[in-house]
Amino acid sequence: MLILITYDVNTQTASGRKRLQKVAKQCVNYGQRVQNSVFECQLDSVKYREVREKLENLIDKDTDSLRFYNLGDKYKSKVEHIGAKPGFDVTEPLIFFD
Amino acid sequence: MLILITYDVNTQTASGRKRLQKVAKQCVNYGQRVQNSVFECQLDSVKYREVREKLENLIDKDTDSLRFYNLGDKYKSKVEHIGAKPGFDVTEPLIFFD
Repeated sequence: MLILITYDVNTQTASGRKRLQKVAKQCVNYGQRVQNSVFECQLDSVKYREVREKLENLIDKDTDSLRFYNLGDKYKSKVEHIGAKPGFDVTEPLIFFD
Repeated sequence: MLILITYDVNTQTASGRKRLQKVAKQCVNYGQRVQNSVFECQLDSVKYREVREKLENLIDKDTDSLRFYNLGDKYKSKVEHIGAKPGFDVTEPLIFFD
């Protein structure tokens, strides 16, 4: 299933900026960055729980927020992009033609 | 249906910072801000087209990006929040008990 992860980390302090880096780094391990604080991740329920727990342990719950949106398996028609840096489909292999 | 709008606007220039303000201001007209650059909007297809067009006309497509996720009508179980500033359910009226 496609899990969308969005986050807001308060970067007014040095420790906040560190948390932001850690959250982003962890998200990179699980999916595709499509915007600065938005990741699309192809996950099963085990991996979904795993990333949620990891991120939950990284943030300061008083100042930062995480949101997870489950777009299911049939998500292609549910996503629209306009403008720069479009995400690419991680489920489709890169094919090179001679 | 619940439409999630996420955006990245390049704020390295003064005009970029103006675009960001305009995009945020427009999104406020259509839904609930749940994170800095993430809005949840209860829209029918006419309003969805409308906001998409308005935002498309505000951004610089070479540097900024917009993404729209259609979470349908049964979205409550699809959204999870951890940490600060939870969004509230805009479809449920505020009820005061004596």
